[in-house]
Amino acid sequence: MSADATEAGRGRRVGMVGGGQLARMTQQAAIGLGIELVVLAGSREEPAIDAGAAFEPGSPTVLDDLRRLAARCDVVTFDHEQVEPDYLVALESEGVQLAPPAAAKLHAQDKLHARRALAGHGFPLPDFAEASSIEEFDRFAAVHGWPLVAKAPRGGYDGRGVWMPADREAAGRLLAETPGPFLLEPMLEIELEVAAMVARSANGEYVSYPVVETVQRGAMCREVIAPAPVSSGLADSARAMAVEIAEAIGGVGMMAVEFFVTARGLLVNELALRPHNSGHYSIEGCVTSQFEQHLRAVLGLPLGDTSLTAPSVVTVNVVGGEGPEGPDARLADGLAVPGAHIHLYGKQSRPGRKLGHVTVCGQDAEATANAARAAASALEGGSK
Amino acid sequence: MSADATEAGRGRRVGMVGGGQLARMTQQAAIGLGIELVVLAGSREEPAIDAGAAFEPGSPTVLDDLRRLAARCDVVTFDHEQVEPDYLVALESEGVQLAPPAAAKLHAQDKLHARRALAGHGFPLPDFAEASSIEEFDRFAAVHGWPLVAKAPRGGYDGRGVWMPADREAAGRLLAETPGPFLLEPMLEIELEVAAMVARSANGEYVSYPVVETVQRGAMCREVIAPAPVSSGLADSARAMAVEIAEAIGGVGMMAVEFFVTARGLLVNELALRPHNSGHYSIEGCVTSQFEQHLRAVLGLPLGDTSLTAPSVVTVNVVGGEGPEGPDARLADGLAVPGAHIHLYGKQSRPGRKLGHVTVCGQDAEATANAARAAASALEGGSK
Repeated sequence: MSADATEAGRGRRVGMVGGGQLARMTQQAAIGLGIELVVLAGSREEPAIDAGAAFEPGSPTVLDDLRRLAARCDVVTFDHEQVEPDYLVALESEGVQLAPPAAAKLHAQDKLHARRALAGHGFPLPDFAEASSIEEFDRFAAVHGWPLVAKAPRGGYDGRGVWMPADREAAGRLLAETPGPFLLEPMLEIELEVAAMVARSANGEYVSYPVVETVQRGAMCREVIAPAPVSSGLADSARAMAVEIAEAIGGVGMMAVEFFVTARGLLVNELALRPHNSGHYSIEGCVTSQFEQHLRAVLGLPLGDTSLTAPSVVTVNVVGGEGPEGPDARLADGLAVPGAHIHLYGKQSRPGRKLGHVTVCGQDAEATANAARAAASALEGGSK
Repeated sequence: MSADATEAGRGRRVGMVGGGQLARMTQQAAIGLGIELVVLAGSREEPAIDAGAAFEPGSPTVLDDLRRLAARCDVVTFDHEQVEPDYLVALESEGVQLAPPAAAKLHAQDKLHARRALAGHGFPLPDFAEASSIEEFDRFAAVHGWPLVAKAPRGGYDGRGVWMPADREAAGRLLAETPGPFLLEPMLEIELEVAAMVARSANGEYVSYPVVETVQRGAMCREVIAPAPVSSGLADSARAMAVEIAEAIGGVGMMAVEFFVTARGLLVNELALRPHNSGHYSIEGCVTSQFEQHLRAVLGLPLGDTSLTAPSVVTVNVVGGEGPEGPDARLADGLAVPGAHIHLYGKQSRPGRKLGHVTVCGQDAEATANAARAAASALEGGSK
């Protein structure tokens, strides 16, 4: 994508594939900049359309729907990874501006592709192998032992598409039930997980965000702690590596690099080429939020300051429980927690579904985290 | 309005009369809280509808249009003052929840009513008189001298509805051209103007915001400096007085009290019972923005922290110039100023029209103001 293609943001109609919470929060940012966000979504009930984004009805799995979105917009970007990579290549061949470009986006869509590419560039990674047969599982287990981690290269998120076969028999059942190939990894001893976000502009300008800790529970990101409680050396290294990866793969827009911190040091886990859960804290916690930054980057507009606005910023996700009532029914309880910035996504409550998040900015990491947890818990209907 | 009428915000459809920039920024805040904002507006082009608020077509001057808005909502509030006060009384008699109530709102709609009420409560005011005849102008001028300030009690804003007759002859021409009565004031020697904002909830809870300086040029607020460069004694006094006024008149929602700072001390100038230009800085500059706070207050939800997020916060309005191009054509120039938070209102450019604002948060008052001015100037097409 060339810099002059976006003419420094002059044509400001941005198309987004997918109408979830990332598109919803991008819409909030688009309002202030006077940018029209057009969202390809299945219904008017989706979070971004509910928040006022322009509605292009359609599906990310239908090429003509993607074409219709592109025809309305100056640049097309993404709320998620679930778009057929071949369709993105087709759109580009027809002259559609994608941000990120199809070749870069593939690193977030196909874990095997990403691992191979990152290995080729020399970035530190967990050991990995591709496996489609029990013999290939055996070969990896011979080195790393059971259990193994097996991941679907495409389509997984929030713990879906991840299995941990305990032995050869379990691996056999997995192969019988689920079409491969799989990305195999050893069970790593992880000290903590961190994420580094970078925004790279259509014209090559980039900025990076402070490194955060992402606290996972039930294979889902539940808390984000900014700054990450790691040494400045490790944080600097993660931040620098994220920039190098963005350059190496030609990302445009926001990109999140998720790392495992292990005894071996930093290992790159996954990439997301879009705004990401690990950056929600930036709405209040950084001078420029990841959503505004994404719009600036995909339009080739000047990028903004990524500094923290407070010494400690903590985001806690609000996740659906068993009851039918969502967090909107408990909004007053959440707002009663001083300093709680509440973001509800306008989604129906379902067990385990991300329905919103809370961010608190403060001076002290522990007090800040406790306040954010208290507000999220209140919204989930737990004890305050 | 009773507290239980809003059931602590359970029914979260808020109606707003008027679809300008205040409604637009309220819509941005409503998204995060999962509140549906329904706006009575003349067209889909108005700033709030453009930003995705639900559209109720109609006019604030048609009682049945107001009734239709109210029928869709749990509470009705306002983007401006231009609603016939008698209609608000009629709506309340029909059971509509207004926030603020009609009797409170009248203090922002009718300057003479406000002056008399505030004088009755003992608040410090400029000397004033009502005048409908040249004799009444003469009587006031005999005490205060010419020129005088004559204001239309209703309908003025941004300098409209304000005259400064230099002598008896000019006053006579004004009386011949414009139907009275007028609110007369002496030409005051004003050191600076400050504003204090209060949010008062439907259940009587209140919070107040830091006192700000409002810098006027061409009878329009051009800059807002937070905190106001005044003694803490004067700031505390303005803040306390704003709370007392909110209580005295029974305001619900955001309220701004504009003060003149004179050799005689603080004098109350005007009230606005709605979010106000002097509070735009709070979007980034306070923990809880005036727009979110307004929604919380009118729904009886717990109120939020009003602390500043930085030592210095400055907002500069972006005003239309002579050319046909608006600030959206110069967005990149504005965004090139580090730390500039840009808010465009989606309005057609016209000379003297408020088209947006820029806020910068910083450590140092002068550097912060200079950055905000540079970004606003760039958006206006001036020198950077």
